[in-house]
Amino acid sequence: MTTPGQLMRAEIAEQPTVLANVLASYGAHLAPVVARLRSHDTRAVLLVARGTSDHAALYAKYLIETRIGLPVGLVSTSTYTAYDTRPALDGVVWIAVSQSGGSPDLVESTEKARAAGAMTIALTNADGSPLEEAAELRLPMLAGAERSVAATKTYTTSLLWLWLLVEGWAQRPLDAAAGVPDWVAASLDRPEVADVASRYRFVERLVTTSRGFAYPTAREAALKLMETCYLSAHAFSGADLLHGPLAMVDEDRPVVVICPDGRGGAALEPVLEQLHARSADVCLVAPSEVRGSAALRIPLPSGMVEELAPIAQIVPLQQLALQLAVSRHHDPDHPRGLQKVTRTT
Amino acid sequence: MTTPGQLMRAEIAEQPTVLANVLASYGAHLAPVVARLRSHDTRAVLLVARGTSDHAALYAKYLIETRIGLPVGLVSTSTYTAYDTRPALDGVVWIAVSQSGGSPDLVESTEKARAAGAMTIALTNADGSPLEEAAELRLPMLAGAERSVAATKTYTTSLLWLWLLVEGWAQRPLDAAAGVPDWVAASLDRPEVADVASRYRFVERLVTTSRGFAYPTAREAALKLMETCYLSAHAFSGADLLHGPLAMVDEDRPVVVICPDGRGGAALEPVLEQLHARSADVCLVAPSEVRGSAALRIPLPSGMVEELAPIAQIVPLQQLALQLAVSRHHDPDHPRGLQKVTRTT
Repeated sequence: MTTPGQLMRAEIAEQPTVLANVLASYGAHLAPVVARLRSHDTRAVLLVARGTSDHAALYAKYLIETRIGLPVGLVSTSTYTAYDTRPALDGVVWIAVSQSGGSPDLVESTEKARAAGAMTIALTNADGSPLEEAAELRLPMLAGAERSVAATKTYTTSLLWLWLLVEGWAQRPLDAAAGVPDWVAASLDRPEVADVASRYRFVERLVTTSRGFAYPTAREAALKLMETCYLSAHAFSGADLLHGPLAMVDEDRPVVVICPDGRGGAALEPVLEQLHARSADVCLVAPSEVRGSAALRIPLPSGMVEELAPIAQIVPLQQLALQLAVSRHHDPDHPRGLQKVTRTT
Repeated sequence: MTTPGQLMRAEIAEQPTVLANVLASYGAHLAPVVARLRSHDTRAVLLVARGTSDHAALYAKYLIETRIGLPVGLVSTSTYTAYDTRPALDGVVWIAVSQSGGSPDLVESTEKARAAGAMTIALTNADGSPLEEAAELRLPMLAGAERSVAATKTYTTSLLWLWLLVEGWAQRPLDAAAGVPDWVAASLDRPEVADVASRYRFVERLVTTSRGFAYPTAREAALKLMETCYLSAHAFSGADLLHGPLAMVDEDRPVVVICPDGRGGAALEPVLEQLHARSADVCLVAPSEVRGSAALRIPLPSGMVEELAPIAQIVPLQQLALQLAVSRHHDPDHPRGLQKVTRTT
């Protein structure tokens, strides 16, 4: 028997070790995939994923757009499954991300993409999974078994793998990632998280927001809060928030703003201004360099590279979901109605 | 002086006429754009939009994936603005959708895309807008002035224009759209909408869901409810709902399911089963051919072409947002904190 949240707590805590392990052992796995990418005449990149892995895919979309400069799309799997489309995908790089490698829609769409001429890559945490079998090339997450239904360490290792893949493809040095395990360790067990969990004890709906590389952090934080705490956590890019949903934000609406040091953070300044003008109750998740008043603040380490910061940003938000779920007498390891492998078609 | 919702009510009611007007006059505008597309060696399509127009772009993504078979991406404008990326976009078709044609991020990213070699098309409802100036090719929505902040007729005309554009590009007959004005007229003023508005009078959070071509309808319905009624309306594709957010659905959570007759509807069957298993309070928006038990039902016309049905599906949901907002003493023509032209960078 486990106590509620025991698995999730342990898997969150493992992250510095697991990430250091990826950094120590990625070379042999990454090299052949990067070699294939570099000899491939790529016209576009398609990413396919669901749930938490879809947020890793979104992160990769920003990275590929900004670092490689190729057109990138997130695939609607129904195009390949429900509508059975068979496009010509020569010159397309297809990257599938899945912890379990088992969802039928990801497997079927990847099989069809490969048959249609795409160069297919599967990033999964499950050796010999159907998705690995479907793809031409494989990257193992190396996160170790993840037993909590709420994914944590497979998310951060996915981000690191995708960063290594894209930077390797762009032929940039990979040593900037050396700081990641320490940044993640420094983001663990922040005492401020308990204050936020206390303030949010009776919250039923909140908003998360960010922009650029940190926007996937807002999405993933919202999903963790939905699946473990059953609250309506709604993520918006800062710009999208201003195009309509801002109307539902008032002084009774908690808003979690993930604000990196860098261009994404600078682009959030007008959003923070609007939130303050509406007296929203803001929790700022940011390194101390980022100014801005907020009712609550969860500090992040200073000096992180903006593109790598999402790997550490999510950690206190994972812990917020865990603490809030437990305080509400839910078990985040076994959310109601969910299984570890979700089988959608 | 206007009464609350007067503009939105009138603009919803105008839709059959406005759509018939587009069908009567698209030819001269569409022909040169389709001619350019057909002579263009396209490697990928990028779509850029915000808010309601972003849901029209998502609709176009499904259409292009299934009807043309090209890789399609929805652009993160921050890649071009905050991060100032300058990718090579030769061979890329770039489609910008915006009612106002005025948001600086859309204008700047479209200017950069054009300079980078993309073939750029602007679909706007504002003659001579900055976005029209930025793009090489222009399509006028022809929706007439839209004065309510909550966009309605510009959404349905955008869908029709994008269908005409993609089907024209694919060299398919365009006469299937002839039924659209009648389908929209038959979707107006359904008495069942008042029953749903009554049942939702005190709802603070709800979920909308669909799949495939109708998924943008779920997104747009959620945005209308957020911006006019200030409730947390959360849209998920049916498959994404099962990958986590389902945990927050219980017998006290209203779920609006838009279920078309066709493949998208068939793909929703396992989602409806899971919702029933969790005793969710389901409102089914569907033609009578679609079976399935639900606490509430809003009927749609029978015999619509699945790809065109979204133009009619949204209409009762626009009216739901209007009626619910007015019953809550809000003015959907002027939601708090919003302007008709949102200026994000």
